[in-house]
Amino acid sequence: MDGIENPGITNKSSISKIQNKRKTQPTIEESVSGIISQDITSLSRAITVIESKNPAHLDKANKIIKQCLPYANKSVRIGITGVPGVGKSTFIEAFGKYLTNQGKKVAVLAVDPSSSINKGSILGDKTRMEELVRDKNAFIRPSPTGESLGGVTRKTRETIILCEAAGFDTIIIETVGVGQSETAVHSMVDFFLLLKLAGAGDELQGIKRGIIELADAIAINKADGDNLKRAKLAKVEFNRALHFYPEKESNWQPKVVLCSALKNEGVKDLWKTIEDYIKITSKNNYFKRNRQEQNKFWLLQTIEEKLKNGFFSDSTIKTKLKKQIALMEANKTTPFAAADYLINLKKSL
Amino acid sequence: MDGIENPGITNKSSISKIQNKRKTQPTIEESVSGIISQDITSLSRAITVIESKNPAHLDKANKIIKQCLPYANKSVRIGITGVPGVGKSTFIEAFGKYLTNQGKKVAVLAVDPSSSINKGSILGDKTRMEELVRDKNAFIRPSPTGESLGGVTRKTRETIILCEAAGFDTIIIETVGVGQSETAVHSMVDFFLLLKLAGAGDELQGIKRGIIELADAIAINKADGDNLKRAKLAKVEFNRALHFYPEKESNWQPKVVLCSALKNEGVKDLWKTIEDYIKITSKNNYFKRNRQEQNKFWLLQTIEEKLKNGFFSDSTIKTKLKKQIALMEANKTTPFAAADYLINLKKSL
Repeated sequence: MDGIENPGITNKSSISKIQNKRKTQPTIEESVSGIISQDITSLSRAITVIESKNPAHLDKANKIIKQCLPYANKSVRIGITGVPGVGKSTFIEAFGKYLTNQGKKVAVLAVDPSSSINKGSILGDKTRMEELVRDKNAFIRPSPTGESLGGVTRKTRETIILCEAAGFDTIIIETVGVGQSETAVHSMVDFFLLLKLAGAGDELQGIKRGIIELADAIAINKADGDNLKRAKLAKVEFNRALHFYPEKESNWQPKVVLCSALKNEGVKDLWKTIEDYIKITSKNNYFKRNRQEQNKFWLLQTIEEKLKNGFFSDSTIKTKLKKQIALMEANKTTPFAAADYLINLKKSL
Repeated sequence: MDGIENPGITNKSSISKIQNKRKTQPTIEESVSGIISQDITSLSRAITVIESKNPAHLDKANKIIKQCLPYANKSVRIGITGVPGVGKSTFIEAFGKYLTNQGKKVAVLAVDPSSSINKGSILGDKTRMEELVRDKNAFIRPSPTGESLGGVTRKTRETIILCEAAGFDTIIIETVGVGQSETAVHSMVDFFLLLKLAGAGDELQGIKRGIIELADAIAINKADGDNLKRAKLAKVEFNRALHFYPEKESNWQPKVVLCSALKNEGVKDLWKTIEDYIKITSKNNYFKRNRQEQNKFWLLQTIEEKLKNGFFSDSTIKTKLKKQIALMEANKTTPFAAADYLINLKKSL
């Protein structure tokens, strides 16, 4: 309320002045200089612009991102996934605290297309990371809500850029172990960590095959007390399983580590593992090449999405597509003839 | 050379008559009625029209296919894959002979985008299937050559329709165990068979994970002589491995069978397995639903391909895409901003 000298005055011009003040958003230049000078409020407000569904904000968001780009990219991006109940929040809190104690600046973001206030987003309940929330070298931002996976991933990737420009050198992207969000997160990080619990049954059951293949490390969480023995067995099992996979392009051999947030163990080993990974992949240039490949992947992916949306959102195409499918099911046309027909139809619209 | 009464006459009109005769292609109606009356020459010539790279033939091909459609779809389509050396040709010969002896009419097609006369296509050397080639109830057609995977799969799918219209009730689609052709074949068949050899080392090594997941049955080939013991061990290993996978939508539990073309064993078991599969998936309606889903998949796939080709083959887009990638690598733009730029550029062209 700075600048309002006498809030008691209620004449029209003063009210308008107050409302104007409240509505005033920082300019693009103010946003960018705030972010670069590591001002958290500027960062938060700029992310809100990115997440805005107001089309008028899109252009502003794009300009802020563009001006932040030269200051971005100097970070390690770590993806963390695991099914609900594996202890992600507690783990990230312990891991984040360890990193800030080492002098790191840690941003924690989330990719969770299902999240909304009602459904309970992963990071929505910040009280789960009480200590990290209060840490001035940590920044926690929940997943944008009410978005498709495509929307969430785009906004998260853009948020990464702003966080990096604001001086965060370690970016953690959390996701839940369901749906396709893991593949999306894998495509935006340098290092991908799978959190697992040592279960009672067969360790290989119940994990999606594809996820293990993506992992650069598997951390077996809650490896303490009665769980410790089982966790050690699980480590052996996972190490064996990891050998079934073809060598990674990064030349990195995925590791299995035991973690206990309770006993504050494992996060140090894990960070050492990540440092080893960075060393190896910086030396063989995979680290840089991977980021470039990721950018190309997102570029082509976005173009394809836009092409498809432009086609399938057309109301005439929608109607005719249904008819062609009915004709196929009646054996009156083939998929290829139907595709030719629809593509030519769209050209004529 | 029917209708040429005196080949000795060399006046202009006669030569022209002979050339005309030679060039005359059957009309669409002649092709279709020939195919429906199960005339193999008509079938072969119509497939040649489908495979033709002459754009003028495309319309004719589409019309023939459309008219054959009401007579198609009454068959079992079986995909067979396996790495080179696994004995696919010998196996298919034994399997095909077994089926024709049961009164079946068997068409064997191939999906092999790498094939050409020089490179040695899978079915190119028909002498590998000597007996089946001479069998009047079998029809063998090599993979169309000089085509991309997309081209080969489209042409093979269209060839399946013609073969079915010509009365073939068992369609075997062979592919090599490399590249993406296996996924393509899986998407055009009812039953997918993986041929394996009992190796010396770990049975799970060297097979692409994804392929096992696709298989409705694994046949361990050359299970005879010194190999028999190893083959039996491999069967146990594979059965164990198959249990790691989530239940299939078809409700079918994949089977492992031992085969020996040498001792003419296993093909009967395999056919029994396929019959069981058909029984189960017909009862739970998966068989029909799967074909409908495959048609939808190919329809959407073809539309996407055409949209992408229309975009990326544009020469202005080609140039500007390179520039945008260079800008991304210099941290001067993001994948999303670059995509927006290129999509808007294309609209203005």
